[in-house]
Amino acid sequence: MQKYRLDTIPREVARNRLLNAVTFHPRRETVAVIDARGRVTAGPVNARRSMPPHPAAAMDGIALRTKVTRGASPTRPVRLREGRDFTYINTGDPLPENADSVVMIEKVNILEGGWVELVEPALPWKHVRQPGEDVAAGEVVLPAGHRIRPVDQGALLAAGVEQLSVLCPPRVAILPTGSEMVPPGLPLQPGQLREFNSTVLAGFLEECGAVPDCRGVVPDREEALREALVSAADRCDILVVNAGSSAGSKDFTPRVLAEVGEILLHGVAARPGRPVVLAMIGETPVIGLPGYPVSAYLAFDWFVRPLIRHWYRSGAAAPPPLLARLGREVQGGPGAEDFIRMRVAHVNGRYTAFPLARGGGVTMSMVRADAWLRLPPETTRLNAGEQVELEWVRTPAEIERTLVLTGCDDPLLDRIGAMIGRLSPGWSLFREYTGQNEGFDLLRRGGCHAVAIQGDLREEGYSGMIRIRVAEREMGWITAPTAPEPVSGVEDLIRSGLRLINRPPGSATRDRLAQLLDEQVGGRLPSGWERTEGSHWKAAASLAGGTADVTVGPRSAAEAFGLRWRPAWREPLDLVLPRSVAESEGGKALIETLRSRDLREMAAQLGGYDDSRAGEIIDPPFAKNSEGGRWEL
Amino acid sequence: MQKYRLDTIPREVARNRLLNAVTFHPRRETVAVIDARGRVTAGPVNARRSMPPHPAAAMDGIALRTKVTRGASPTRPVRLREGRDFTYINTGDPLPENADSVVMIEKVNILEGGWVELVEPALPWKHVRQPGEDVAAGEVVLPAGHRIRPVDQGALLAAGVEQLSVLCPPRVAILPTGSEMVPPGLPLQPGQLREFNSTVLAGFLEECGAVPDCRGVVPDREEALREALVSAADRCDILVVNAGSSAGSKDFTPRVLAEVGEILLHGVAARPGRPVVLAMIGETPVIGLPGYPVSAYLAFDWFVRPLIRHWYRSGAAAPPPLLARLGREVQGGPGAEDFIRMRVAHVNGRYTAFPLARGGGVTMSMVRADAWLRLPPETTRLNAGEQVELEWVRTPAEIERTLVLTGCDDPLLDRIGAMIGRLSPGWSLFREYTGQNEGFDLLRRGGCHAVAIQGDLREEGYSGMIRIRVAEREMGWITAPTAPEPVSGVEDLIRSGLRLINRPPGSATRDRLAQLLDEQVGGRLPSGWERTEGSHWKAAASLAGGTADVTVGPRSAAEAFGLRWRPAWREPLDLVLPRSVAESEGGKALIETLRSRDLREMAAQLGGYDDSRAGEIIDPPFAKNSEGGRWEL
Repeated sequence: MQKYRLDTIPREVARNRLLNAVTFHPRRETVAVIDARGRVTAGPVNARRSMPPHPAAAMDGIALRTKVTRGASPTRPVRLREGRDFTYINTGDPLPENADSVVMIEKVNILEGGWVELVEPALPWKHVRQPGEDVAAGEVVLPAGHRIRPVDQGALLAAGVEQLSVLCPPRVAILPTGSEMVPPGLPLQPGQLREFNSTVLAGFLEECGAVPDCRGVVPDREEALREALVSAADRCDILVVNAGSSAGSKDFTPRVLAEVGEILLHGVAARPGRPVVLAMIGETPVIGLPGYPVSAYLAFDWFVRPLIRHWYRSGAAAPPPLLARLGREVQGGPGAEDFIRMRVAHVNGRYTAFPLARGGGVTMSMVRADAWLRLPPETTRLNAGEQVELEWVRTPAEIERTLVLTGCDDPLLDRIGAMIGRLSPGWSLFREYTGQNEGFDLLRRGGCHAVAIQGDLREEGYSGMIRIRVAEREMGWITAPTAPEPVSGVEDLIRSGLRLINRPPGSATRDRLAQLLDEQVGGRLPSGWERTEGSHWKAAASLAGGTADVTVGPRSAAEAFGLRWRPAWREPLDLVLPRSVAESEGGKALIETLRSRDLREMAAQLGGYDDSRAGEIIDPPFAKNSEGGRWEL
Repeated sequence: MQKYRLDTIPREVARNRLLNAVTFHPRRETVAVIDARGRVTAGPVNARRSMPPHPAAAMDGIALRTKVTRGASPTRPVRLREGRDFTYINTGDPLPENADSVVMIEKVNILEGGWVELVEPALPWKHVRQPGEDVAAGEVVLPAGHRIRPVDQGALLAAGVEQLSVLCPPRVAILPTGSEMVPPGLPLQPGQLREFNSTVLAGFLEECGAVPDCRGVVPDREEALREALVSAADRCDILVVNAGSSAGSKDFTPRVLAEVGEILLHGVAARPGRPVVLAMIGETPVIGLPGYPVSAYLAFDWFVRPLIRHWYRSGAAAPPPLLARLGREVQGGPGAEDFIRMRVAHVNGRYTAFPLARGGGVTMSMVRADAWLRLPPETTRLNAGEQVELEWVRTPAEIERTLVLTGCDDPLLDRIGAMIGRLSPGWSLFREYTGQNEGFDLLRRGGCHAVAIQGDLREEGYSGMIRIRVAEREMGWITAPTAPEPVSGVEDLIRSGLRLINRPPGSATRDRLAQLLDEQVGGRLPSGWERTEGSHWKAAASLAGGTADVTVGPRSAAEAFGLRWRPAWREPLDLVLPRSVAESEGGKALIETLRSRDLREMAAQLGGYDDSRAGEIIDPPFAKNSEGGRWEL
């Protein structure tokens, strides 16, 4: 294994170096206007015909010569005869020979026998569209480099243009690398990984008007990569290699690129996405993207999109930033920009943004991200409460129809997010496991709409809160197949020495477990006490994967992974939300979901829930030891 | 011809009436994830496999058991041997059996002979991605009703999902009506019109995820329409009829709809787009759109788009409004909403919006529109200077890269807009003919970037202005083929009695003409003195179309339409812009265009221009009778 240093070139400098190295000569082709949506004009397009081609009625009414209406007044109306003095005409119809005005039908007094009466004179060319009023032959309809929209197609056809010259899209090769990578559709052997970045990158390319050319997976041999690069450079306008751009032992992409072409740079001062490599093979630019999905997608934005705009000679079209308040402090590293995935809560008309999990490989975080926050290199920290400009991923309208549910973790709660949009079109739900205390803290600061709570709790100053039952859930000991015996209590746990996955600090389940350990084994802590996973479900996944032996969680999580489960206690699982939220459109959508048949079906399917009071309002919302309390099975 | 009244039902009420009448049962189909971009999930999609499937390295480095590093410190480093104590590992690789930590390569001191040294102990599960860390088997990856993006495809493949159930798109019939309408591609006979609305509507439908089914043109016979409706209702989920919804003599769509189905309403309280008809044929909704393009597109937005969202059970996704200041007062009518096409100037960081021409049939205005302004029914007027919320058509980023050029009218100036984007990618130019005085007024109020001027003029307080030569142009008398003799002066004009097309009040050409009439024919005015067209080019188009006989304009306009032309005078054609604009990115793009070979080629192609000083700075910018003056040929 060798270590080598990446460049730390500012992103802007890197992009300019790339664009300056490239001279594209886009091909052109002639297409029918009816097939031209989304294409980019190769040159200005002029009208071939005037629209309207002839003087035309701009209103439904009668066409006539103005002179026949001379002197008309309410006291001396003028009588006109159809055929001789006027013709009925519809909007858009050509004006008859000699007519020079249209009187709208509302001003025409229709009499018997083909006669009409007017009480005021017509004005010349009134309600008449002149030839070329919309567009005159020879006028410019579209400039060069214009991406054609449906309304442009309409204007072109109206202007007599049936075909036009457009730029051919650039052909972009996508070369996935890695002997362990298997394309979608083929079976996976142990140790192999699904190659999905090509699919994502191909989608991005199609969205920005390029034609992806997905090549087969290139195995980890320098010779194979060399051949693949040279052959793709022959056939394509841009090459995207994924991955092999970082500094691991198999990352020989830079070395091979230096052999068959010329390296422009290796490494930009931006995180994640830093280990990108830019090169030229002859006239063809090559972008070596990092393998981690989020890094790859960012580096695609930084270098591949600008290349495609360069091809079309079009400008960037970034939407206006979303202004939000930071709900939590954000940290970056020194010496480089940081790009941070954010989730955004829209509560009481204010946007509040929170950083998402930052692991570069987390594909789900890209699904969940609402926006990006960029920290410039000189900024390593922004405090909660600061105003920030975000680049949105989901539109503000989507964000405004997203409920944020924090608090305790439960698989059934996760399912609510998958159901709410079906019952209330357009609504979605974002789940974040924060524990109850942080959940209430967020609720107070406008960072969420509702908090999930388990068991009973005392809450001071709860006026204005509503508490709604989701279900009662069965909690218990979940044991992995690695353990000889299932654990069914704290004594078992300590005696066996099995490796625990705990809940994070601040979680009610963790507190409950600590209490049991205090009561039953004198406070001794099991192995793994400090190890936590993101959720009960993920803890069960880790048990199934063999990296730990036991956890405490809901029966549903155990059943999903076929793990052994022994009951510990039952507890209510409720949502708490401010009355103002409950009465809002989103709050109603949430409550409707809790009361739906879908929720009950899902609870039954997961197992371990009693939904007999689902959707009931629990009053008072917080209590000392009321009916909402926790009890042993 | 009969007159009948349209309903004036508020748009919101009309839409709800339609949506309440419709119950869709969208079909489902299974598609491969790699083909699923843009499709909408039919139900929640859960992970089939955990990602990562096994504990994996989160960093390049060495994998080991933490216990072998116990006690390591700078003073007492621990030496480890490859194979026995550790394995080199790359990011993403599965952790070897028994390893429980990864030490990043940057912290490994590599020695000779397969030995390494560590100066601090490794922490359990550090730099290890747990199974399911990204997504655990059974977790919800996507909710129901979610439109699939490339990043979603990535997450689905990572989660072991290769196929999924999606909603089939609704099939929407487009029925164009009108015996005079001819589809694109077929030759036009006199009196026939190109049917282009179907192409526009089909593009809109594809953009919002529906499948357009473009039917042939339905001739103006009730029976033909009846048959077309019934047959389309049989095969499609939604019917769009265009047009026949207004109250002209051929507009029997409502009557036929009432026979074969049930009318929900005919007419909404919104302009333009008011004469829409909504109906049901059995279970199938029918939207009768007005024929005027702008009205049709608005009514499409109001009723067809919501139906398609209803099909997918998805929410509206309107972008945030663009906040702008009104640059000119805006008037609406009473009793209904008004939708007004706006152009938006971005000058010195401020958005200023101006209404565009309002003729409903003007397809070019849809090409030129930057945004929509909605006036509620109770608002009939907004004053210049008021703050308004606009719905953008072009993105704010596009608007920010658009130069607005007002002032006098000239065909060569129009061509600049078609060239600027080729020389300066992303930049475009919006031309508005305002005359010079209003142009300067707009310049002062931030409504434009530059003013085109002709001839010489005095301008007080011009400090900070730059004037740049475009060309000298030849102005003269343009005579239509309808006239027996070409006109070559004001005496000719008065003597012949030919019909003039004049320039609008405030135009320098009109003033010049008035002066000549005063000097040579004692101020007598020719026939048509008050008739104007939007531009020299459009005036020439009207002459070619036979609705007038003579105008004064540049040689280029005459030549384009093959009209006779007699010289009158030569004059300089210049641009005036503030120094701050000239030094901005957009100003530089404009000046570069004026100095380009493209401009000279275009001037030569149009004819009637002397470009020998094109791009020169004229100093001083304004003068009494300097070299910039106007003189006879």
